[in-house]
Amino acid sequence: MKAKVVTRILEANDRIALANRKLFDNANVFVINLMSAPGAGKTSLLEKTLSSKGLNLRIGAIEGDIAGTEDSERIEKFKIPVVQINTQGACHLDANMISEVLTELPLDELDVVFIENVGNLVCPAEFKVGEDMKVMLLSITEGHDKPLKYPLMFQESSALVLNKIDLTAYTDVDINKIKKDALSLNPRLKIFEVSCRTGEGIADWVEWLNSQVSSKR
Amino acid sequence: MKAKVVTRILEANDRIALANRKLFDNANVFVINLMSAPGAGKTSLLEKTLSSKGLNLRIGAIEGDIAGTEDSERIEKFKIPVVQINTQGACHLDANMISEVLTELPLDELDVVFIENVGNLVCPAEFKVGEDMKVMLLSITEGHDKPLKYPLMFQESSALVLNKIDLTAYTDVDINKIKKDALSLNPRLKIFEVSCRTGEGIADWVEWLNSQVSSKR
Repeated sequence: MKAKVVTRILEANDRIALANRKLFDNANVFVINLMSAPGAGKTSLLEKTLSSKGLNLRIGAIEGDIAGTEDSERIEKFKIPVVQINTQGACHLDANMISEVLTELPLDELDVVFIENVGNLVCPAEFKVGEDMKVMLLSITEGHDKPLKYPLMFQESSALVLNKIDLTAYTDVDINKIKKDALSLNPRLKIFEVSCRTGEGIADWVEWLNSQVSSKR
Repeated sequence: MKAKVVTRILEANDRIALANRKLFDNANVFVINLMSAPGAGKTSLLEKTLSSKGLNLRIGAIEGDIAGTEDSERIEKFKIPVVQINTQGACHLDANMISEVLTELPLDELDVVFIENVGNLVCPAEFKVGEDMKVMLLSITEGHDKPLKYPLMFQESSALVLNKIDLTAYTDVDINKIKKDALSLNPRLKIFEVSCRTGEGIADWVEWLNSQVSSKR
């Protein structure tokens, strides 16, 4: 009974996600669904991306949070179009929430829209929102057991950004195990090692982002 | 429509949680619902608690994960009763999952059962499982914006354990802001600062745990 309800909700969601995707495609906008656990650094990655000299893309953002406007305020400082969604208790964004705010963004003036999902390693991976690709962020402080404990998000993502790499020496984390287990779940996963605090690795990430968007055109 | 389904699910859950609670009370067992984001250190806190010299309680554990048995294997090394629940996609434990495994634990021989929830800052706070209290763990590497972005878990918890305090000097986190915002959401919240890596602060946490259990008796 409960499983049936969940299946119906997911099917309805996929239909709306497809409609969102058509709108994005018509506007020639590349859409990234950015997912991670709370505090892994999604907003920080977006900040570092926006301030990177190598970036040649016009970016807009949708910020998803249970409550508050802290993330959209951080991104507004970069003078780009940004919309805040408060899910009021829902632990993930769904396609309908995105559909509701699409008219708030000037899609024809953008190359990329980042959809920053609610901080959660589980449900965001189950709900399509109309994206071209999912990108997962993992803070290395979360430990090397995460791929095997939260497999779906690793399987669904095109890229994995390992953040807070500057803290590696102060932890017992085995980064090679993270990479090995993540690649065993998803052999095509592109993996980056970055520090949004020091800026290490950001240039490689931005270069790849540029190439992904231009290869779609 | 969707909201009604959610309300019905929560009401049904609360009825089962109450039945669980009666079973725990009859066995004179104190139950802690341990919640945090992925990788904040729930299993590590349990390991440190179990190996603390100050602990005078017989402990059992229920380990909740989407997939895998890594956590229960870590806890089994302490020769205590432990049950692993794999939620197979669900982002939280609910009362029925706990009800299903209760007969696997020798409740009459235990003082405390730790229920380690799925790593998630959102839904675990919404679903009672029959606990005496909720305890929240937050890794300081997750950043000082968490109380205002995930208010419900801070409001629902009796204690907040700030973990990975040994990494403070290598981050930009403002621990006073975490405490201030958490207390503004929940003035009765008891806050601990610990490092499960170095052992700092664990003795205070264990002393408090002993006192909470004996004050119920």
